[in-house]
Amino acid sequence: MTMGEKPTLVSLASELGVSRQTVSNALNAPHRVNPTTLERVRKAIADSGYRPHVAGRQLRTRRSRNLAMRLHSTSDGINGSILDRFLHALTEAGQRHGYRLTLFTADDDEGEVAAVDELLSIADIEGFVLTGTHHADTRTSWLLEHDVPFVCFGRPWSAEADPFDAPHPWVDVDGSTGTAEATALLLERGHRRIGFLGWPEGSGVGDDRRAGWRRTLHEAALDVEELSCGVDDSVTAGARGAQELFDRGATALVCASDSLALGAVAAWRAAGLADDGDEPPVIGFDDTPVAAALGLSSVHQPIEAVAKHVLDVLLRRLGGDHAQAEPPLHQLLPSSLVVRTPDPYLLGRRPPDQDTQA
Amino acid sequence: MTMGEKPTLVSLASELGVSRQTVSNALNAPHRVNPTTLERVRKAIADSGYRPHVAGRQLRTRRSRNLAMRLHSTSDGINGSILDRFLHALTEAGQRHGYRLTLFTADDDEGEVAAVDELLSIADIEGFVLTGTHHADTRTSWLLEHDVPFVCFGRPWSAEADPFDAPHPWVDVDGSTGTAEATALLLERGHRRIGFLGWPEGSGVGDDRRAGWRRTLHEAALDVEELSCGVDDSVTAGARGAQELFDRGATALVCASDSLALGAVAAWRAAGLADDGDEPPVIGFDDTPVAAALGLSSVHQPIEAVAKHVLDVLLRRLGGDHAQAEPPLHQLLPSSLVVRTPDPYLLGRRPPDQDTQA
Repeated sequence: MTMGEKPTLVSLASELGVSRQTVSNALNAPHRVNPTTLERVRKAIADSGYRPHVAGRQLRTRRSRNLAMRLHSTSDGINGSILDRFLHALTEAGQRHGYRLTLFTADDDEGEVAAVDELLSIADIEGFVLTGTHHADTRTSWLLEHDVPFVCFGRPWSAEADPFDAPHPWVDVDGSTGTAEATALLLERGHRRIGFLGWPEGSGVGDDRRAGWRRTLHEAALDVEELSCGVDDSVTAGARGAQELFDRGATALVCASDSLALGAVAAWRAAGLADDGDEPPVIGFDDTPVAAALGLSSVHQPIEAVAKHVLDVLLRRLGGDHAQAEPPLHQLLPSSLVVRTPDPYLLGRRPPDQDTQA
Repeated sequence: MTMGEKPTLVSLASELGVSRQTVSNALNAPHRVNPTTLERVRKAIADSGYRPHVAGRQLRTRRSRNLAMRLHSTSDGINGSILDRFLHALTEAGQRHGYRLTLFTADDDEGEVAAVDELLSIADIEGFVLTGTHHADTRTSWLLEHDVPFVCFGRPWSAEADPFDAPHPWVDVDGSTGTAEATALLLERGHRRIGFLGWPEGSGVGDDRRAGWRRTLHEAALDVEELSCGVDDSVTAGARGAQELFDRGATALVCASDSLALGAVAAWRAAGLADDGDEPPVIGFDDTPVAAALGLSSVHQPIEAVAKHVLDVLLRRLGGDHAQAEPPLHQLLPSSLVVRTPDPYLLGRRPPDQDTQA
């Protein structure tokens, strides 16, 4: 082994000219190894400072460095990409701290609690990350009651209680700051009848996004409550909802998702509202890859920061060796608008022909 | 505890009126538990048939039931969704067999091998799943050399060797069957100048998809090699590539991805080739959520079947208690076309107004 390299089970095996299984057996099932070989392997292990097998290590240190998260099924895959981005960011942030992420699936809250219950028994999971918090979420009370370390991506959505009084840690994104920016941009561009295309009232996340639009119009002394529309979260529903809002006189739309915004752009084009050179007066939410691909402006959630904070709070709770300042128990990070110039194709126009430049 | 329910660490704690940590300590750090309590907990554990802590269990059975996979970064998030679908399917298939999936990240092949090397040392991973196989893939030789159980999603892409002679197991999807179906459908609809909008020659996956188009046109005695175009995998590049193919006289396009197809639909619309009532003569690949949302026909990969086969082969290799017939070492599953009626908005047309039906 080269000086300075960290020994691994594989490098030890390679150095000794034995199989990986032999080194593993020397550590965990020494009776299976020929005594002469066993002595050689043990000496090499001692000399190398190699960290032995995790199962033995776990019993001594009681630290598995395993976290677990339920893998949510995605809705239409456009908006679902935000949870996949979170998964990527959390995996990367965990890896930087030597933690791994284990995935499981469940059909609903109850199934998730049952899976957590089982994982606590059969796997050595140190802590859990919850996503998709919602009204009447039964998961958090169960986890609190059983003293299971966890952090939520998503604030508790309760009409009665202040989320900042919640007994458990959470990190969330304030959707209203981004939709306020989006509304302000459309005002700046001269629009006065700006609609909000969102989900039916009552979903915490959707109402939060609507709040930024409403606040900004109130501040501008514009009252356009009639220009709010709640539909299912899909491209098709978005197109039909947008058509209705355009019919009611809206000239621009702030949307609760990029799926809705895609539908709205299509409806705007179909309604013949576009002059040549116009940009679609539509702003999406979640800054998905589809929005980026088509040049659609969209509200961005700082998912990497969310993942980092979730991990900081969870590792602190786990009493790791992370000697950082105590992170706040509840964190609401602002969302922000990403302004884009749309791809000419988004407008249904043929772009300037570059080949004519001889 | 209710009769018939499976005891868990949490249910035991609840039944005994002690904390989860106390039950865990009784199993793993008995010196920390008050002797009277310890005796009570131990008796309850013995009575319940509870399976003790995994770390202890691992040392006895040497089965962690942990698999690991590198979480690939996605490209534009449209096409990347296929690997996220695979991740979901693999997690679910694993769970049905009592296996969990642990994720890690890496920047490249070398980083992936280093991560596998480290995981073999510090975590108890039974086997690995590789995705994104490509020409000159250095990962498989390393894993073979070190006798690490693994299965690839993706065949080995080597010009010299028959993938069915590969020394390691793989499962893959034959992209050419789906693009052949797509081409046949466009022929049926009267098109004779059918183009292929793909990636530059040399990528195994892209060439495989092109092969189905080429084969079908040759069988129809049409030679349209000039109607093949290779561009970067993005909506914008797809639009420009499609415009070029339409300029060369193509009337319909089979695409290597849904990103390219989205660009192609936009180019077709911008080029003014659409008559009212026309469907975009464009077929995508991967049957992504975006294609479903917009009503775009697209080639579907049987990802759930891939995940199931990957797991069957891997578990068999791990010598589990899955007393099934030996699964084939190399499996190529056919892709197939999903034909859709496009959403009217995809065409830039206002749909029939349903409200006029009084």
